[in-house]
Amino acid sequence: MLMSAAEYRESLRAYKPRVFVDGDAIASVADEPRLAPGINAIGVTYDYALDPAHAALALAPHASRAGQVNRFIALNHNSDDLLAKLEFTRLTCQETGCAMRYLSMDGLNAAWQLTHRLDAAVGGEYHARLRAYLEHVQDQDLTVGIAMTDAKGDRSLRPHEQDNPNAYVHVVGRQPGGVLISGTKAIVTSAPYVHELLVLPGRAMTANDRDFAIACAVPIDAKGLTIIARPAGRPGSDKAIFSNKYGQTTAVCVFDQVFVPWDKVFLCGEYEHSEFLTKSYATHHRHTCIGARAGFGDLLIGAGAMMVEANGLNLLRNSHLRDTMVELIKTVEGFYACGVAASVYPTEDPSGVVEPEPVFSNIGKLLLATQIYDMHRLAHEVSGGLIVALPGPDEDHNPETRALLSDVLRGRADIPYDKRAQVARFIEDLTASDAAGWMSLISLHGGGSPAAMKAEIFRRYPVDDKKKLVTRLMERGVLTKDKSDCAQPGQCCDEGCK
Amino acid sequence: MLMSAAEYRESLRAYKPRVFVDGDAIASVADEPRLAPGINAIGVTYDYALDPAHAALALAPHASRAGQVNRFIALNHNSDDLLAKLEFTRLTCQETGCAMRYLSMDGLNAAWQLTHRLDAAVGGEYHARLRAYLEHVQDQDLTVGIAMTDAKGDRSLRPHEQDNPNAYVHVVGRQPGGVLISGTKAIVTSAPYVHELLVLPGRAMTANDRDFAIACAVPIDAKGLTIIARPAGRPGSDKAIFSNKYGQTTAVCVFDQVFVPWDKVFLCGEYEHSEFLTKSYATHHRHTCIGARAGFGDLLIGAGAMMVEANGLNLLRNSHLRDTMVELIKTVEGFYACGVAASVYPTEDPSGVVEPEPVFSNIGKLLLATQIYDMHRLAHEVSGGLIVALPGPDEDHNPETRALLSDVLRGRADIPYDKRAQVARFIEDLTASDAAGWMSLISLHGGGSPAAMKAEIFRRYPVDDKKKLVTRLMERGVLTKDKSDCAQPGQCCDEGCK
Amino acid sequence: MLMSAAEYRESLRAYKPRVFVDGDAIASVADEPRLAPGINAIGVTYDYALDPAHAALALAPHASRAGQVNRFIALNHNSDDLLAKLEFTRLTCQETGCAMRYLSMDGLNAAWQLTHRLDAAVGGEYHARLRAYLEHVQDQDLTVGIAMTDAKGDRSLRPHEQDNPNAYVHVVGRQPGGVLISGTKAIVTSAPYVHELLVLPGRAMTANDRDFAIACAVPIDAKGLTIIARPAGRPGSDKAIFSNKYGQTTAVCVFDQVFVPWDKVFLCGEYEHSEFLTKSYATHHRHTCIGARAGFGDLLIGAGAMMVEANGLNLLRNSHLRDTMVELIKTVEGFYACGVAASVYPTEDPSGVVEPEPVFSNIGKLLLATQIYDMHRLAHEVSGGLIVALPGPDEDHNPETRALLSDVLRGRADIPYDKRAQVARFIEDLTASDAAGWMSLISLHGGGSPAAMKAEIFRRYPVDDKKKLVTRLMERGVLTKDKSDCAQPGQCCDEGCK
Amino acid sequence: MLMSAAEYRESLRAYKPRVFVDGDAIASVADEPRLAPGINAIGVTYDYALDPAHAALALAPHASRAGQVNRFIALNHNSDDLLAKLEFTRLTCQETGCAMRYLSMDGLNAAWQLTHRLDAAVGGEYHARLRAYLEHVQDQDLTVGIAMTDAKGDRSLRPHEQDNPNAYVHVVGRQPGGVLISGTKAIVTSAPYVHELLVLPGRAMTANDRDFAIACAVPIDAKGLTIIARPAGRPGSDKAIFSNKYGQTTAVCVFDQVFVPWDKVFLCGEYEHSEFLTKSYATHHRHTCIGARAGFGDLLIGAGAMMVEANGLNLLRNSHLRDTMVELIKTVEGFYACGVAASVYPTEDPSGVVEPEPVFSNIGKLLLATQIYDMHRLAHEVSGGLIVALPGPDEDHNPETRALLSDVLRGRADIPYDKRAQVARFIEDLTASDAAGWMSLISLHGGGSPAAMKAEIFRRYPVDDKKKLVTRLMERGVLTKDKSDCAQPGQCCDEGCK
Repeated sequence: MLMSAAEYRESLRAYKPRVFVDGDAIASVADEPRLAPGINAIGVTYDYALDPAHAALALAPHASRAGQVNRFIALNHNSDDLLAKLEFTRLTCQETGCAMRYLSMDGLNAAWQLTHRLDAAVGGEYHARLRAYLEHVQDQDLTVGIAMTDAKGDRSLRPHEQDNPNAYVHVVGRQPGGVLISGTKAIVTSAPYVHELLVLPGRAMTANDRDFAIACAVPIDAKGLTIIARPAGRPGSDKAIFSNKYGQTTAVCVFDQVFVPWDKVFLCGEYEHSEFLTKSYATHHRHTCIGARAGFGDLLIGAGAMMVEANGLNLLRNSHLRDTMVELIKTVEGFYACGVAASVYPTEDPSGVVEPEPVFSNIGKLLLATQIYDMHRLAHEVSGGLIVALPGPDEDHNPETRALLSDVLRGRADIPYDKRAQVARFIEDLTASDAAGWMSLISLHGGGSPAAMKAEIFRRYPVDDKKKLVTRLMERGVLTKDKSDCAQPGQCCDEGCK
Repeated sequence: MLMSAAEYRESLRAYKPRVFVDGDAIASVADEPRLAPGINAIGVTYDYALDPAHAALALAPHASRAGQVNRFIALNHNSDDLLAKLEFTRLTCQETGCAMRYLSMDGLNAAWQLTHRLDAAVGGEYHARLRAYLEHVQDQDLTVGIAMTDAKGDRSLRPHEQDNPNAYVHVVGRQPGGVLISGTKAIVTSAPYVHELLVLPGRAMTANDRDFAIACAVPIDAKGLTIIARPAGRPGSDKAIFSNKYGQTTAVCVFDQVFVPWDKVFLCGEYEHSEFLTKSYATHHRHTCIGARAGFGDLLIGAGAMMVEANGLNLLRNSHLRDTMVELIKTVEGFYACGVAASVYPTEDPSGVVEPEPVFSNIGKLLLATQIYDMHRLAHEVSGGLIVALPGPDEDHNPETRALLSDVLRGRADIPYDKRAQVARFIEDLTASDAAGWMSLISLHGGGSPAAMKAEIFRRYPVDDKKKLVTRLMERGVLTKDKSDCAQPGQCCDEGCK
Repeated sequence: MLMSAAEYRESLRAYKPRVFVDGDAIASVADEPRLAPGINAIGVTYDYALDPAHAALALAPHASRAGQVNRFIALNHNSDDLLAKLEFTRLTCQETGCAMRYLSMDGLNAAWQLTHRLDAAVGGEYHARLRAYLEHVQDQDLTVGIAMTDAKGDRSLRPHEQDNPNAYVHVVGRQPGGVLISGTKAIVTSAPYVHELLVLPGRAMTANDRDFAIACAVPIDAKGLTIIARPAGRPGSDKAIFSNKYGQTTAVCVFDQVFVPWDKVFLCGEYEHSEFLTKSYATHHRHTCIGARAGFGDLLIGAGAMMVEANGLNLLRNSHLRDTMVELIKTVEGFYACGVAASVYPTEDPSGVVEPEPVFSNIGKLLLATQIYDMHRLAHEVSGGLIVALPGPDEDHNPETRALLSDVLRGRADIPYDKRAQVARFIEDLTASDAAGWMSLISLHGGGSPAAMKAEIFRRYPVDDKKKLVTRLMERGVLTKDKSDCAQPGQCCDEGCK
Repeated sequence: MLMSAAEYRESLRAYKPRVFVDGDAIASVADEPRLAPGINAIGVTYDYALDPAHAALALAPHASRAGQVNRFIALNHNSDDLLAKLEFTRLTCQETGCAMRYLSMDGLNAAWQLTHRLDAAVGGEYHARLRAYLEHVQDQDLTVGIAMTDAKGDRSLRPHEQDNPNAYVHVVGRQPGGVLISGTKAIVTSAPYVHELLVLPGRAMTANDRDFAIACAVPIDAKGLTIIARPAGRPGSDKAIFSNKYGQTTAVCVFDQVFVPWDKVFLCGEYEHSEFLTKSYATHHRHTCIGARAGFGDLLIGAGAMMVEANGLNLLRNSHLRDTMVELIKTVEGFYACGVAASVYPTEDPSGVVEPEPVFSNIGKLLLATQIYDMHRLAHEVSGGLIVALPGPDEDHNPETRALLSDVLRGRADIPYDKRAQVARFIEDLTASDAAGWMSLISLHGGGSPAAMKAEIFRRYPVDDKKKLVTRLMERGVLTKDKSDCAQPGQCCDEGCK
């Protein structure tokens, strides 16, 4: 079953989550204006899957039977799948800025690997549970949010050392039918308007952190779960001409004795596997982020080029602007290339799914994390300073200034002021607004901080193989002086002559 | 006479400018909440001048008589003055983010130079007029806004070629008592809440642009002047914990047959001097910008360090964070150093004022223009992603979540959630908000685009002197082979052997 | 027929080119010590093709018959071929620093495309000639040098405007059997020790430059051809522990009435196709350069890690060094990813070969061109300053200092001084020597300057498609205010409300 | 007494140091061709002091009596002195690339501070000894080399933990008349051709490293001292048209039971003062380095501009090249500005000398350390690739190619090939040679590694003052919501409302 965007929105009515936005209790997520931009953005991933033009990218095989499901809830089995998910992510983000739903895919693939590995290591039925859960998600065409980053409390302490154990989600009780969990996940993208949350551990756990090694799925309206969210995008703001239509929320999710039945528990105390899950998820997700931010970059490139024209300038004639545009293109395609390369050299997992190659995935994510700021700068350079000096949309309807402004703030003669203002406001919204600030921070820290990516690059890079290249040159005498060149053969150094 | 901040605010009531903000006509600027943050920020420059602790930086001699005036409306006569203005600008921006009033000083110094030069070149009384005007400004302790950047229209065309001549301010009529001007200035910082606007040409003018070569002063409530402004900062937003107190507006100023009496006209048709004024103002202003953005940077450094602590981390122990903090310091002090160096090697003008050294001034401004984005990034790196995931202030008063959040979102045990949230929101406001977006674009394009600064660096740099260094090495034979080394002296190259 | 390295060296004896190195006429290229490092490096590409371990990368199908040839003289038909050539280039450069012979492949593929296109456009037998020539090269396992960059003379003038027409290679006479060419190619890598030169035009030609639109092949000992070369690497230098074994020469090739028979002429006056050839070759070559410099980067990574150990330090414990190493890895793999991505999305040519995707190819080359300097810096950061302070190899044999130095300059106890010195000298040779300087300049300017790559990125990037994304958002009303939000529907702006 | 360059060279004959260069014992330093470029470069500092045109920069007051001495052996007492030393360093390096002798000044100033502090702390006559020594140096117009960086051995171990204690210089015996020292200093610039070595500890020492806390002066021919040096520059190389005239050597200095009389001992066992000395010297020296590398940068700027012209291009018309040149200027003047700023805000020492402000000094040095690589790149970008493809000087005298090359490799018509080649070879020598590699590594690691500078920036930066800025905003309620805005005043948060 594939839902449309409208059906997805309707499907949310079946849930009664406890959600607060800006201090207000939300009666109906589906009808809440402050969450509408988020629902719109995820809706695009539903509609695209129904559009035959996008079928090759948007659809993937069901995990267990014939038929196709949305790629954002499918498993990746090979290099082509990875390329397709990268491209589909870019495609949906070209429309929405950030389509969010790809997180479901990242989490499900990682959980698939984990449960397969757990069963191999400790026996059990984890993998069968996960398969059943995945089938449910695919059959119902659900969206699954990922609840991973804990609140962390005092960051210099491990989970079990925290003053307040609820700084991390953990098991607080075990019952015949399942477990009780409590604690806080802090940066949960799109939480209010997903169907389920997949709870994953946010870091490697040690033996003392055993209770914190918990992975499980809970419906969004599980008893004891409170979701405290920011508005998605900038709904209701006239200035936010894009982000009042498409946006993303991040929420704090507080679990208070939430009961999870065993068939939705995928890790529970096997702390030594928690790092595997964390790293595996990170690899999947960092790879996907690359596609997402490339889609965002495409909007900047397009809007920047349009702004140049509206200003009466020309990229072909103005080399300063052209070089700046090329720099923007280089940035976007430079990190996107890492996503492509990671797709070409995947790591096969015994569970049957593939992970993107980790070094390229982490480099791509690291590049975009820091370069999102450069992307903003480059878009500003080509656009000119007017984009923060133009009067806002409220001025458009002021009869005392409307005609005046249209007259004096037009740029190129054949592009009316309204068009110019529209492009300027679009760029402002994407790059110089609350929503832009959110995007830069999420790009920087989402999926792990730059330091985490650097650590992973080092951990996964074959430095020893590179040392062998030099050692081989040494051993083969390439880096050694010929004895024939030596003035005192045999009398000086033992090493250094061959 | 030195006014206090309160007196400055009151003084605005004497003017009745035609101002619109977000489509609304503003009845009283002094009482308009959407402009209050701007008035607050400029107010700081008044109060500091009354504070004996700041006297050395805040006060400077009156232009024509004994007594002291606010440095931001004084002339700079030597290297010490330039250092003092740089430091005073930094000081006031450490409180306000951007104190704006230094623009008065930049414009008045440039106009002082221009009028002196004009009189020398074409005779006349321009300089006497300017002196009288300056005395008036100093005697009344006024704030003068700078109206320089024209709307520009089609940017590939010169002023006189524009379809709509009102894309640039220009003279449309001459009368015995003065001139009539029309046209549009597009990015006028702080316009609604200044006393006077100093209108300056925004570019070099050619003979055909003669009518566009106009510099003059007009009171803010001149007949025919319409000011269409954005709100200053983010007044009224609970999230904007800093920018609802201090902020800056930029306005579009439309002149429609505004009459300017001759005694306030400082350039009128002498198009060949327009470039001098433009460059001179740019040099003064770019130098000042360096101090302003360093003050902003100080706030980031301080808040970043506090956020690290609130997160339970420690700059001494965490080398990743420390290196990032050092990078932020290096950035801020790196461009500030250019401001200091420009102060040390000033250019003396025949009029008696000094210009900051232009190469250092332009390099400093160019660095900050592009590095403001890096500053945002570095502040985000040290702060962590939570600053865009924390619930907003409206949540603070929600009895259903208040205690819960305070409990689970605390970081270091001895720093209460409220303090942590306050720092996080401060950083968000400075770096990830509409106000932050405004700041980055104004940093990038204010005082001229990066391309303009590069052109000026090249124009002012003594490249020929550097060529002479190499030529001298050549001529002295340093770069020449000794003839004694030559196998065939005299038989081969004539050059190349000495 | 596949030759071994030894057979390749012997095969050079069949040619009698007119070669000068450092002012000396070279009697036998195969025996000249100053060219030996170049012959060694190309020899590696021969030996690897005979090594079954490398067969998958090193061999490719013959153009016209069964059997396999060296990949560096083969055509690329699909994405897998492009990946294989990228990897084989990296592999051979991991041994040699730069294996040079891949240039043959780049030139032959471009000429294959050109001649196919020429025949389609103007009729003729160009493509058949090229096929025959290619078969000859493949059958004989030759190495073909690329003579493309002209001397250029006054760079502000086009070829036909030059004071001295010999600043560019051009046709000076036509005879029944062929053409006579004269002029100068200025940066011809490996010229003295190749079998043939493939002469290609170095820029787009106009109608007035018709005679300069010449592509053809000449044997290295063609009458009238003079090759004035630098030494390959740093032969004979004890300090050059790597570059006295492997190196590259660049030569100036002066053509003086060189006769080329028609069957080796592949472009002759069809100036309007010259740009196609130039761009096509550039795309092939820039892609290959990516693999080459990644191989060089691998040597830096390995040697840097070994130097850290020899210094007694540890990348796991020293986060400064580890971050620096990660930065080096990020740089190398970051541009390599562009090569991979360019392989994944090739452009099919009607001639049957594929071109790597041009945007990724140019971005990768642009990145390496500028980042080679960063690679040197990063290698220096991890290695420490000792690598330019250690006494040189001549000191190793000084009985008065040998024991002393071995004793006091050892680092980690279990790594003898000789080993430490060897790694230090290797890094010095690769990054801080004449050879390193050559490498950086060739990386920067080889295959076109950064400006050329930026122009090509802009030319090939689908900016219009990106504008359409924004236009579509506009047309679909995403970027438009809802009419329902408007206070005065129908009364204000026509645009801006839907 | 001020010596001329010739007298300085002669003065070296009075010393009989034990020096090896490339394995050869050097009989007479003054006559050794491999050291001549170093002697030439230091000679410039002598001749400039005799040139009245340079008097203001080159001369400074004698420490104890009337008369003037070379600034490079003088104390700095105020901001003007610091500016003068910065400018004089730049001036001498514009001629020599690196004039080396400024190290004397850096070491003597630091020792002056140290001994004053030592006497204050522990009593004694250290300062009187230093004053006497300084008078001797000034009276004789000597050059003093700085022997600071120890060989270090295993870098993860402290001095006293080393397997071989001679990895660091330390006291091995005490006698009535003085101390005996042994050990190794590893990167001693200009050692063979100075008069004296000032031995300083290379790091902070702990109680266990007490014997390693030694500062003292030794004549260059002290018994037991062996100097193993590299050639200075690239003497004897025809290609090295600059570095065969001016160059620098770095030497390993091995001390074997060298006796130092007490009157030349300036620190001996007071380990807790060793860090002060190290940091103080580092601050003086990093500041000076800024001037040195700016002088080197001036040569690149000049030569780059000349190469552009020789190529027939024009910086005014070619915006790519101009932007690159501006980038080079921005880099050089950007770090130089830090040197100026450090001079403006010096730290006064109780001893009467001033230290340059440490944050600016370290930032400037850190910038040049990493940007020397960018400087090379930018010089290469403006120059074009020909500079490593032009035939070398040996080719100039080849009658078979000379006329040919002059004809085809000329660029702009009015600039003969010889001139073009001369500029190209100059740039190659400065940026793409062994000498260039040395310069980049010494820039990076000389005066401490980048990590050391980052640590010092953090240590000296007033982070707490910046935190106070934010705390003050908090305390004054700027960052606090007005209670009047609160829906439930008094009922919710205690904090957060004022």
